[in-house]
Amino acid sequence: MTAASSTSFDASAMSRLLDHDNIDTRNGLKELFNGELYTPRYNVTLAEERELALQRLQAICDKRLISVLDFKDNPRRIFSAHETVGMMDGSTATKMTVQFNLFGGTILKLGTKKHHELLLADIDTLASIGCFGLTELGYGNNAVEMLTTATYDKDTDEFIVNTPETKARKYWITNGAVHAHYVVVFARLLNAGVDEGIHGFVVPIRDKDRNVLPGVTVWDMGYKIGVNGVDNASIGFESVRIPRDYMLDSTSTMTAQGAFSCDVKSKRGRFLKLADQLLSGRLCIAAMTLGSAKVCLDTAIRYASSRLAVGPKGKSDTPIMDYQLQQRAILPLLAKTYALNIAFNHAKDRYTELDASNHTDVLLLCCAMKTLISWHSEDTATTARERCGGQGFLAANRLGEGIIGGHAGITAEGDNRVLMQKIAKELLSGASKAQIAKEMVAGFLPSAMRRAVDGTLSGDLDDLQLLLKILQTRESRRLSELATKLNNGKKQGKSIFNVWMLEESDLVQGLAQAYAERLTLQCCINALRTCDQGLAPMLTVLFKLAAIDWLERDLGWFVSEGVLTPASGREVPELARRLCRDVAPYAISLVDAFNIPEHMRHAPAAGDWVAYNGFDNYGELLPAMQRRSTE
Amino acid sequence: MTAASSTSFDASAMSRLLDHDNIDTRNGLKELFNGELYTPRYNVTLAEERELALQRLQAICDKRLISVLDFKDNPRRIFSAHETVGMMDGSTATKMTVQFNLFGGTILKLGTKKHHELLLADIDTLASIGCFGLTELGYGNNAVEMLTTATYDKDTDEFIVNTPETKARKYWITNGAVHAHYVVVFARLLNAGVDEGIHGFVVPIRDKDRNVLPGVTVWDMGYKIGVNGVDNASIGFESVRIPRDYMLDSTSTMTAQGAFSCDVKSKRGRFLKLADQLLSGRLCIAAMTLGSAKVCLDTAIRYASSRLAVGPKGKSDTPIMDYQLQQRAILPLLAKTYALNIAFNHAKDRYTELDASNHTDVLLLCCAMKTLISWHSEDTATTARERCGGQGFLAANRLGEGIIGGHAGITAEGDNRVLMQKIAKELLSGASKAQIAKEMVAGFLPSAMRRAVDGTLSGDLDDLQLLLKILQTRESRRLSELATKLNNGKKQGKSIFNVWMLEESDLVQGLAQAYAERLTLQCCINALRTCDQGLAPMLTVLFKLAAIDWLERDLGWFVSEGVLTPASGREVPELARRLCRDVAPYAISLVDAFNIPEHMRHAPAAGDWVAYNGFDNYGELLPAMQRRSTE
Repeated sequence: MTAASSTSFDASAMSRLLDHDNIDTRNGLKELFNGELYTPRYNVTLAEERELALQRLQAICDKRLISVLDFKDNPRRIFSAHETVGMMDGSTATKMTVQFNLFGGTILKLGTKKHHELLLADIDTLASIGCFGLTELGYGNNAVEMLTTATYDKDTDEFIVNTPETKARKYWITNGAVHAHYVVVFARLLNAGVDEGIHGFVVPIRDKDRNVLPGVTVWDMGYKIGVNGVDNASIGFESVRIPRDYMLDSTSTMTAQGAFSCDVKSKRGRFLKLADQLLSGRLCIAAMTLGSAKVCLDTAIRYASSRLAVGPKGKSDTPIMDYQLQQRAILPLLAKTYALNIAFNHAKDRYTELDASNHTDVLLLCCAMKTLISWHSEDTATTARERCGGQGFLAANRLGEGIIGGHAGITAEGDNRVLMQKIAKELLSGASKAQIAKEMVAGFLPSAMRRAVDGTLSGDLDDLQLLLKILQTRESRRLSELATKLNNGKKQGKSIFNVWMLEESDLVQGLAQAYAERLTLQCCINALRTCDQGLAPMLTVLFKLAAIDWLERDLGWFVSEGVLTPASGREVPELARRLCRDVAPYAISLVDAFNIPEHMRHAPAAGDWVAYNGFDNYGELLPAMQRRSTE
Repeated sequence: MTAASSTSFDASAMSRLLDHDNIDTRNGLKELFNGELYTPRYNVTLAEERELALQRLQAICDKRLISVLDFKDNPRRIFSAHETVGMMDGSTATKMTVQFNLFGGTILKLGTKKHHELLLADIDTLASIGCFGLTELGYGNNAVEMLTTATYDKDTDEFIVNTPETKARKYWITNGAVHAHYVVVFARLLNAGVDEGIHGFVVPIRDKDRNVLPGVTVWDMGYKIGVNGVDNASIGFESVRIPRDYMLDSTSTMTAQGAFSCDVKSKRGRFLKLADQLLSGRLCIAAMTLGSAKVCLDTAIRYASSRLAVGPKGKSDTPIMDYQLQQRAILPLLAKTYALNIAFNHAKDRYTELDASNHTDVLLLCCAMKTLISWHSEDTATTARERCGGQGFLAANRLGEGIIGGHAGITAEGDNRVLMQKIAKELLSGASKAQIAKEMVAGFLPSAMRRAVDGTLSGDLDDLQLLLKILQTRESRRLSELATKLNNGKKQGKSIFNVWMLEESDLVQGLAQAYAERLTLQCCINALRTCDQGLAPMLTVLFKLAAIDWLERDLGWFVSEGVLTPASGREVPELARRLCRDVAPYAISLVDAFNIPEHMRHAPAAGDWVAYNGFDNYGELLPAMQRRSTE
């Protein structure tokens, strides 16, 4: 039996595995997207681009294809909607995630009945549009230090929300520049001279006719490097008064008499509680960028399969997908998209069961998926752009949206690098001392002995269990190494800050990377047991390629640290090449399984690009835009 | 003496080293750029963006800051102008490079007196704007297969230029959509039924009032993922007649009687001769993207030095440039910018001496510099964007221009990956058989013996000569390995095409990469001997960091192949961290030496970004644009 026949698979079964849940919602969205409103257009003004993103979101809401109440009943529906909208338009997805997750979710979870009655129904219909006022100009990655205040005025039973200086302005506020009626403002609650820490307040900023309310300054942030359908603003408050009831009070309360009480004692704890919606927000970003990566791969692989270039006889008769160069660039990204999709499905399932008992696990999963998938999405789009050459440079082929959308994901709702630090911190505090001690001892041994201690790190690399073991070894080595460094630093009188931020940053990042990749492979191996067994042979090849790619990217470490012998090190790229060759014949079927309907396959490069270039198209996709003069 | 004091340096001497030549031209351009015309603006229409790029170029031409005749008198002036304009605006630089290098240079070199008299003076003033019609929709990387024809009609003494099908349309033609009066069309010359191969023809496409001429179809390609000031077109010809004299005839001639003759016998040879202007074009792209990388680093380093985040006590009091994370991300890019600048200067010098004797060397240098610098520029902008977080996402901070400008460079005028193949091919044909044989023998030895054969690959990695030796070893190993594989393939009856394109692509690319990086380090070491000796200590640290970064990125290979021991492998990241620490105190001085005047430092993040955010700026830089409504 050839490799080809043994790994053939049923594309619709594969789609079901990837799509995982809420197929009706996904299908509903895809049907909706079959229309002019959802066709990309390029020669539009900033104002038009923003209205378009709103109209697209409005139509989604009109069909009730997402609801803030899904957080209670069916959280995975939120994420599946994000992935599907992420395939269509990053701007619409971003406006949606702020409305339904950051704004809506916060109202749902931190608000109480009065807020729910005021807002929830209108959030679902977009009658009330909201934004999330956390980040301040001067305080991005250290939001706990923010400066905005909400001072309780007992005389009028109101809070006075105030922006003391430019660096305190709420910054990058999605939906703020044009559309939002409300903002959840995170501010220091000051009560009778006491700073009670950060709390959330609902502050109206526009009336129903979109006039900005008195005391609120909304400054339009204008053009960004992409997703310009999103209207970002810098927002300030000049002693804006809101009723006491507009404080979100599910955990902290304030009486009319000025008595403050809170379940959570530390100020940092209060802040973290408030920012909890960032957790699901990270899965939303993972979903959006996963959707975008799938579209980019679909385009790159279909184009490479139809673009002919030089063949054995010098004629232009060979699809560039046949070139090893193209396969080596694109197929590991395809394999990792599958692997990350499987791990992401697991993260969604775990999020659904979220409670106090699994909070740390879910936190780790959310951080791992948001970082790995947003970086992967940027990497995929960048590589696809380069491998599509000039076609990749046309706006209509949408790879630019993938690149910049990936960037947006990488640093939004927690800079990936900061989330990696968070992962490393959680791993350290959760690690068993015994395990670390064992690894520390192993760390002092010469590499031949280390291999003996670690056990099974020789053998055929073409084996998922061995690959998992290799990734586990990297993770546990780095965990113990970091613990040792921190411990030694402590003995030498160094602060944790110094060791962590000034000396061992590579190790901190490397530990988190090792964890996230190992976790992903673990999820993949688990999925092989439970999935439709007809899919297992193909998935096995893909998961191996993903794992081998991770090994290859960090091969210097694996061989230098004696986890792999130099001979195994030489096998890694060899095996990567073989796996790429094995995957290549299925590349089209594997993107078919992404289940992107033809009407959402907008990129001309993904279809009959010769026909598209057979008339004066102005680089546009909508017939009406193609007739529009560029003057 | 501390590392700090021993490596301090004179910034103006450093600038002179980097800028290298034509300081007057550079200064003239920088002075010119001190005005409203050259301030970036974002909320503009496509038509405005294109006119702006033209006006910017017109003012450069009005001041005679570049001339097509520089190719004769002072070619380095062309490249230095490209670098300086590349700092200012990628669109202007792209229009300029097509006008002066691809169009103007081709007229100069392939044309004869009649063409020079018709066009050269007007090229310098922009009275005649031209474009370069090489690429066809179906024939990007295999242009020798192009389909456009120029059929000689003896009866009228004319050529008839014709586009037989959609895939034959001239595609991506810069200056074509709006501005160009002429295009140099590359077409198959057909004479009395004989195909004489590809030749160049001057074809008028617009009259002086910019009306498109009969028979010419110019289709506007519309929005691209960036550099939208460039007006790209798809251009077709419906039996357009031009006088016989419009054939560029410096190597081939055609008499009125239809007698064709040519100095170059093979059709492929004729094509390569015609495409020779791509050689200087590659240095132009290297120059433009080098300029862009410098601006991105300037922004990233200044921002990181003024952006405060969490410090030892949890307060936002520490510049993020102090974080090892930031240093490790940005400083190797700074070091490589220096190293590549030095190698690029060498390439410019060699180009100036271009003749038959050094043609291959110059070809290799041009390919190496274009590929390494354009990739580096994209990488630098991408990393800078990510490390600047939200600020990096604002259009006004210009890192998006750097990302997409890098992309434009990577696949324009020869896809980098194809140029890497070209490098590998030239290296193979130039290699001495004896050297390859020696390496082939060494390749069969176990790694311990290999090290003995290679000689000196142990020792302190903190030594440029050893680093060079390591890079040389990689290059020669890969060269002999590729020769062996091709040889073995031949014995097994495989075609060279199959081995090259389907089996050994990684090795082909890896050889070219090894060559280009080794060459760069070699130029750096040479420069240390000849430079102002006060600069040598700082440069030595930078060049080491650049080389160590190259080692680190390919560390799996070095250790797996036994070029480095695992112990040396572990030293590599350690040394990289130490070198980053050593460079960090000089980061600002090192970007000062890029000699970017304050008025060209547009990115608010590079300056007082709090003040910039103290008013409603619409994300714009020009006061007039800040007042402009986005509605």
